[in-house]
Amino acid sequence: MQGEIRLGILGGGQLGRMLLQAGIDLNLYTLILDPDAEAPCKSLCDEFFVGSFADYDTVYNFGKKCDVVTIEIEHVNTDALLKLKQEGVKVFPEPEVIKIIQDKGLQKEFYCHNGIPTADFRLLQNKAELIENADFLPAFQKLRTLGYDGRGVTRLTSSADFEKSFEAPTVLEKLVDYEKELSVIVARNPNGEVSCFPAVELVFHPVHNLVDYLFSPAAISPEVEQKAQKVAKRVIQALNMVGLLAVEMFLTKDGEILVNEVAPRPHNSGHHTYKANLTSQFEQHLRAILNLPLGNTQSHSAAVMLNLLGEPGYSGLAQYEGLQEALALPGVSIHLYGKKITRPARKMGHVTITANTVAEATQKANQVKEVIKVKA
Amino acid sequence: MQGEIRLGILGGGQLGRMLLQAGIDLNLYTLILDPDAEAPCKSLCDEFFVGSFADYDTVYNFGKKCDVVTIEIEHVNTDALLKLKQEGVKVFPEPEVIKIIQDKGLQKEFYCHNGIPTADFRLLQNKAELIENADFLPAFQKLRTLGYDGRGVTRLTSSADFEKSFEAPTVLEKLVDYEKELSVIVARNPNGEVSCFPAVELVFHPVHNLVDYLFSPAAISPEVEQKAQKVAKRVIQALNMVGLLAVEMFLTKDGEILVNEVAPRPHNSGHHTYKANLTSQFEQHLRAILNLPLGNTQSHSAAVMLNLLGEPGYSGLAQYEGLQEALALPGVSIHLYGKKITRPARKMGHVTITANTVAEATQKANQVKEVIKVKA
Repeated sequence: MQGEIRLGILGGGQLGRMLLQAGIDLNLYTLILDPDAEAPCKSLCDEFFVGSFADYDTVYNFGKKCDVVTIEIEHVNTDALLKLKQEGVKVFPEPEVIKIIQDKGLQKEFYCHNGIPTADFRLLQNKAELIENADFLPAFQKLRTLGYDGRGVTRLTSSADFEKSFEAPTVLEKLVDYEKELSVIVARNPNGEVSCFPAVELVFHPVHNLVDYLFSPAAISPEVEQKAQKVAKRVIQALNMVGLLAVEMFLTKDGEILVNEVAPRPHNSGHHTYKANLTSQFEQHLRAILNLPLGNTQSHSAAVMLNLLGEPGYSGLAQYEGLQEALALPGVSIHLYGKKITRPARKMGHVTITANTVAEATQKANQVKEVIKVKA
Repeated sequence: MQGEIRLGILGGGQLGRMLLQAGIDLNLYTLILDPDAEAPCKSLCDEFFVGSFADYDTVYNFGKKCDVVTIEIEHVNTDALLKLKQEGVKVFPEPEVIKIIQDKGLQKEFYCHNGIPTADFRLLQNKAELIENADFLPAFQKLRTLGYDGRGVTRLTSSADFEKSFEAPTVLEKLVDYEKELSVIVARNPNGEVSCFPAVELVFHPVHNLVDYLFSPAAISPEVEQKAQKVAKRVIQALNMVGLLAVEMFLTKDGEILVNEVAPRPHNSGHHTYKANLTSQFEQHLRAILNLPLGNTQSHSAAVMLNLLGEPGYSGLAQYEGLQEALALPGVSIHLYGKKITRPARKMGHVTITANTVAEATQKANQVKEVIKVKA
């Protein structure tokens, strides 16, 4: 941290963009690798490389230019990252951790081996094995690898749903009768310092399976908050990882916490922290991977976060309707991702609404949802 | 604000950099003009042009590429900006306003004509006129134009100081026996909406005349706060300007507010807002010039801001000492400007310390000041 650090990020989308934004504070020399020449990060870094982060040589050659390499997406070539690590490049999160998290089957086994509470599951090779496990329904069937943002997940209520099931290695996860979905973002630096953000509550869109509303703080008892933070810390410590880990959880109707899944990077469930907490998730991730002391995660305002998704029926050059009206509401701020092209349900930005209480913020959030539309 | 806006900024230093940082939220296409090819903004914009912002053709040609042009420094070619304005480019602050503020003599006359309280002054053409006005001392002599960051100001206590006086058009400003120096940052958008940030107190370095400590909120009564905000609003309304205006003031020992000088752009006295207020001064400036509703300026935390100046005796590639120790204190965040080269008293970054009270933040600020050093 004495001179300029060369930080490489695999992925140049909105998460990379928000990392670069936070990184402006820290005198970094930044390098981005993304397959899309028009990625949101392209004008905000020192060097931008177009290439596949799944390709061994591309990732290896990119990483050789960096002091520290991190990710904004898990679907990266971990073999190249392992090689870079062996050769002295700092890679956070560690390639071994990314390997586990890339595969929802390994992830579930990891929870079991480490006494981390999670929903019951079975690992399936193919559809034939699914049929043999019909007794396990209702359940979610999730592709073991390459799922993202709700893709690669299907809900199977009975054998009548088998036609929409996957013919691939999957995790069949028992449906949990939950009260709320929570997320705790936890960070750990190489010194072993660990710090959690306050738990938030997530409400997912029933169709897209993307975060529809985020409420901070979550409406939970101090006991549940403590339990959720304890679980998040246990996961990051069991993984022995450095960086940020978003731990999505179910709070069951009888007050238990079950880990749903994790992401070893900044996460949609932490976007509000930029406007509502003393340290943002993006600054915290950078502090962690640069081995700086972790920041104060306290929230200073209640917040609701809404994703701005491309309106159904519109594809093409993005046009934003209703920003004036939305921003006229006190406490409303917008964050657009700089994507030129909108598509139905594409994540184009988000809105954070801060207020004294979540109820007050929610009321404004409902107004915002009415007025802002991303069209083409 | 529907599609992408082409925003040009004259000046690519730290203020431009922090504007770009805030602009990431707003889907802007950004263009920067700066004479230094290594300016802090160079890797954070869509197009970076090396050239003089004092040159008519350079500014005009740059501005023609933009929908909106703003500044991070006043010393720009206002004739080119006037021409751009006539040709339909939005220029905020307005060239006419920049012209007044560029010249401390016109600025003082403006206050007089508009009933804005300010210290007594005389306008001098040269040293001969200064000698004729020896009865006016003690006073500050300020160059009418091109002063910046404490340069171009000298304190004259008696005629014995005449040898350090300026041989140029100057303002001779009566020394004010003040209690505190305050700053109120106020914003106005084209709709005429006006909003102030809470007043802060500034303590200047006795030698460099740069801000040494900033305290937010200022320790003043609600009556003084109200009076200071009223004065700031009166100035921006009298100027009839759009954008951000930092109004530096003296609070005299008998409770009067006198305007010292103003800057029509983000200002050192608003750096803490990024970490301690619901809207930062940078976001507010962008909202104002893009004719968006202004943001909520409320402070959520008490704060102290320290400038990180290059240590005396060191010039060359900047090295930052003590960042680890400083960041380990809860509430401390750093913002480095990405300048490769340090020089004595060069502004290299700043530190913001947030806490529940200014007293608590000040205690930590003193520790920070001990440990962080910018050397070479």
